[in-house]
Amino acid sequence: MLIIGEKINTSRKGLKEAVENKEEAFIRSLAKRQVEAGADYIDVNCGTFVAEEPEYLKWLVEMVQDELNGVPLCIDSPSAVAMEAALKVHQGRAIINSISGEKKRFDAFLPLVKKYDCKVILLCMDDSGIPEDAETRFKIASQVIDLLKKEGIRHDDIYVDPLIQPVSVSTKNGFSAAKTIQMVRDCYPAVHAVCGLSNISYGLPRRKILNRAYLVICAYNGLDAVIIDPEDRGMMEMVYASETLLDRDPYCSGYLNAYRKGILG
Amino acid sequence: MLIIGEKINTSRKGLKEAVENKEEAFIRSLAKRQVEAGADYIDVNCGTFVAEEPEYLKWLVEMVQDELNGVPLCIDSPSAVAMEAALKVHQGRAIINSISGEKKRFDAFLPLVKKYDCKVILLCMDDSGIPEDAETRFKIASQVIDLLKKEGIRHDDIYVDPLIQPVSVSTKNGFSAAKTIQMVRDCYPAVHAVCGLSNISYGLPRRKILNRAYLVICAYNGLDAVIIDPEDRGMMEMVYASETLLDRDPYCSGYLNAYRKGILG
Repeated sequence: MLIIGEKINTSRKGLKEAVENKEEAFIRSLAKRQVEAGADYIDVNCGTFVAEEPEYLKWLVEMVQDELNGVPLCIDSPSAVAMEAALKVHQGRAIINSISGEKKRFDAFLPLVKKYDCKVILLCMDDSGIPEDAETRFKIASQVIDLLKKEGIRHDDIYVDPLIQPVSVSTKNGFSAAKTIQMVRDCYPAVHAVCGLSNISYGLPRRKILNRAYLVICAYNGLDAVIIDPEDRGMMEMVYASETLLDRDPYCSGYLNAYRKGILG
Repeated sequence: MLIIGEKINTSRKGLKEAVENKEEAFIRSLAKRQVEAGADYIDVNCGTFVAEEPEYLKWLVEMVQDELNGVPLCIDSPSAVAMEAALKVHQGRAIINSISGEKKRFDAFLPLVKKYDCKVILLCMDDSGIPEDAETRFKIASQVIDLLKKEGIRHDDIYVDPLIQPVSVSTKNGFSAAKTIQMVRDCYPAVHAVCGLSNISYGLPRRKILNRAYLVICAYNGLDAVIIDPEDRGMMEMVYASETLLDRDPYCSGYLNAYRKGILG
């Protein structure tokens, strides 16, 4: 499972101020701790700023990659201008978070994916919004995957995000996202599936319990990348356990290594 | 999810002595605590005794049902003699744990299922042992279900146990049992699926992590009864979370009730 560390995001408590005040040591430590806890990519997001976003995002990319000796980033922005400012200074192959079936967004980000040879997260929504059912989400994913392919983007560089909606809003929402993942992985085995998990538990108490159980359900359906807090030990335990139980961990060696490193409690 | 509390079992530490010495208060408290923690049935097993098993099992059944005002039991024994001694004093409808495709066992237990109007756990094995693959396990389950049906046992009174084998022995074992559950529930929607979970993690460290994640995988595949320690809070959290995420908990009310009762940590 590819782990994308979610903590450098200015919508999180304290982060807006840390970025505004350029608290470099704090943000560097946040980046470093996530990699030490098992993150493969670090997500950077300062989309709560508008005018300053390009400048702040570029600053984040340079500083975090300097701290982590070039660990690649997942660059999270709705703005093509901010995205390009960040990609210009990024070393290695970034993940663009995200494109979708929304025409304007797709047209603005596609040139960046090609110019900077990026991987890309594809959200299962279009100009009509987020569909309720798995079939329509899969249809959107399928159309965009085919468009990307025509533009030379390899399946292996695409990460489909089913877009999880809360079970407190509809009790069918757990199945909708899981089934979308399954359909995408069945039909396009080289395309990856990714998601953030916390939206599933919105509006309910003890959210981490639901998020952790839902990770297992998504993994069963083919999820192979996830945007989480790698310092949430209970969540990382479910990541390692899922891989072992789902025959993705030969000789249980990933699980045993995590145990020896003290990651499993 | 039907919860069967597993703690009254003389293969567990301290229980053999407690039964031998007739430590009534200790066993009564073990029974009561499991029901308070959410158990619907209490499993009783003193199969480590041979000569004394009928007497001890009868004693356990009477005492536990006295303590719990007739909460029904899951009576766990390989001996038809001990089983009948226990069923004679049991109030209400017990679950017999277990029959299988083994001819001798089937022939010895079928008359008891009929005479005492029991529910029954059906193990997916026969005289050749436990098959490795899901297809052969399903075939055994299917044959025995059809035999039971001919004898007048309703599908709704049958609980199929796929027989979980450790992932440390073969990394495919997680899928084999989960797929067996799925096949049984797809083909016989009124038949239930049950299992104990702890065998999945045999030979690996931090076993509870694997057991809890595997509960979620089994629930996704249709498990609707489980033999666990209901005092394992992390496990019960996964039970409630699974029901909510898998659209088996209208209005999330089971999850919210568990939260209010303090079951969710």
